[in-house]
Amino acid sequence: MKRTDRVGAIIKILTQNPSRVFSLGYFAEKFGAAKSSISEDIAAARKMMAAMELGVIETTAGATGGVKYMPHISDGDVDALLSELCSKLEDPGRILAGGFLYTSDIMFDSSLAKRTGEVFARKFRDKKANYVVTVETKGIPVALMTADMLNLPLVVIRRESKISEGSTLSINYFSGSSDRVQKMSIAKRAVSPGTRAIIIDDFMRAGGSAKGISDMMREFDVEIVGTGVVIASREPEKKKVDDYYALVYLGKVDEIRKKIEVFPNKSAF
Amino acid sequence: MKRTDRVGAIIKILTQNPSRVFSLGYFAEKFGAAKSSISEDIAAARKMMAAMELGVIETTAGATGGVKYMPHISDGDVDALLSELCSKLEDPGRILAGGFLYTSDIMFDSSLAKRTGEVFARKFRDKKANYVVTVETKGIPVALMTADMLNLPLVVIRRESKISEGSTLSINYFSGSSDRVQKMSIAKRAVSPGTRAIIIDDFMRAGGSAKGISDMMREFDVEIVGTGVVIASREPEKKKVDDYYALVYLGKVDEIRKKIEVFPNKSAF
Repeated sequence: MKRTDRVGAIIKILTQNPSRVFSLGYFAEKFGAAKSSISEDIAAARKMMAAMELGVIETTAGATGGVKYMPHISDGDVDALLSELCSKLEDPGRILAGGFLYTSDIMFDSSLAKRTGEVFARKFRDKKANYVVTVETKGIPVALMTADMLNLPLVVIRRESKISEGSTLSINYFSGSSDRVQKMSIAKRAVSPGTRAIIIDDFMRAGGSAKGISDMMREFDVEIVGTGVVIASREPEKKKVDDYYALVYLGKVDEIRKKIEVFPNKSAF
Repeated sequence: MKRTDRVGAIIKILTQNPSRVFSLGYFAEKFGAAKSSISEDIAAARKMMAAMELGVIETTAGATGGVKYMPHISDGDVDALLSELCSKLEDPGRILAGGFLYTSDIMFDSSLAKRTGEVFARKFRDKKANYVVTVETKGIPVALMTADMLNLPLVVIRRESKISEGSTLSINYFSGSSDRVQKMSIAKRAVSPGTRAIIIDDFMRAGGSAKGISDMMREFDVEIVGTGVVIASREPEKKKVDDYYALVYLGKVDEIRKKIEVFPNKSAF
């Protein structure tokens, strides 16, 4: 195997497994090469990834040391993603009765979810979180991709307690988005006390869901160290949670003139 | 930029965007290199990926031509995934009251979902499907990853019709897993007549959900060209759908002796 071959294979394996540590021995065995050669391959891979702004390859020394890939979405790619989200959301064909917007095609698009997950991973990578938490359903793809980038388990809170979840803790809360009391339910075995979690969701209106998740997590002695949503509505300006990060803000939805106001969050980083 | 650098970057971009066609011009512009050099880089990348069984890089000629990455999970990696799924599922701590199994941690594990998605993509890649379809909630991660590998939209059927889905079509069906009549609901705008879909789900007992999805799709003149589930129970042997593919089979769950029978599907390919 030539250097080019090994560097390419290392990049493929590392980027497919973000935030996971691989030992030099793993690659040495896989490629039948000396650890010193692998070390040089990794240096070449790191230089290339950094130059192209394709993410950071980090090496750690010592017995438990190794190499891992930290995803990095460049400022330019964040801008491009925000523009793409805004132009998709501005499509007047999305307007439903009552001024609601159809967003399922956006939230279930794996490519958008992956890039949005990269943005959240960049935002929250230093928060030392133990889980990514979301509440079903439309936030699951972006929460899954965020969890993947950070190499964390995903915990999905259900609307109804299911027999297949074992013992659960449930709460009722007021949801501004649906204008009614909603229920959420979490499997007791899904989280451990004394841990830290990031909340990821598709949409925030008044912040009732995020507040509900946060209250629920407090019952388990789990601290919320970050909250990210794809879309936040501008109104109400005062949310039930203080600190959250949204990729885009939704303004007025004019059913008569068929106009949707969407604003990218330029203060992203 | 040296060849090694370009080959690595090409591999990263292609493998992060499975089944998507990129023109030579895209890479030529990105790297400031001649198309002839890019052509040689791609040949190097293809050779390396094939030798390592890391997937297939395909090139197509002509004006609309370009290069794309087709994911390929090797037979060895399929075996390793099946063993990992079986050993996780055999853990007696999963047994819940009534002989149900807790599987949320498995179904929401992004690394398992990604590799399971690669298996389904390998299985169904020649089916010329237009969508991947699942019903909420636990099948969403693996369905999303399958859709990502095949570069297809994901359609998620909801349990309740939501105002944010616009007009919906709903059906009631008998679910053997939950032993009751369940409802499912799909946004009319999510699919188009005359198209083809693959069903992906986390679990199949008698096949009621898959049959329900299939019936619903027929109403829209959408043909089901494949059905994949992570786990299928051995009983009942006769399912409501004829043709499905399961990664593992679940046998007896003995609540007293704390034994769970799980069998890998060795006839996978």
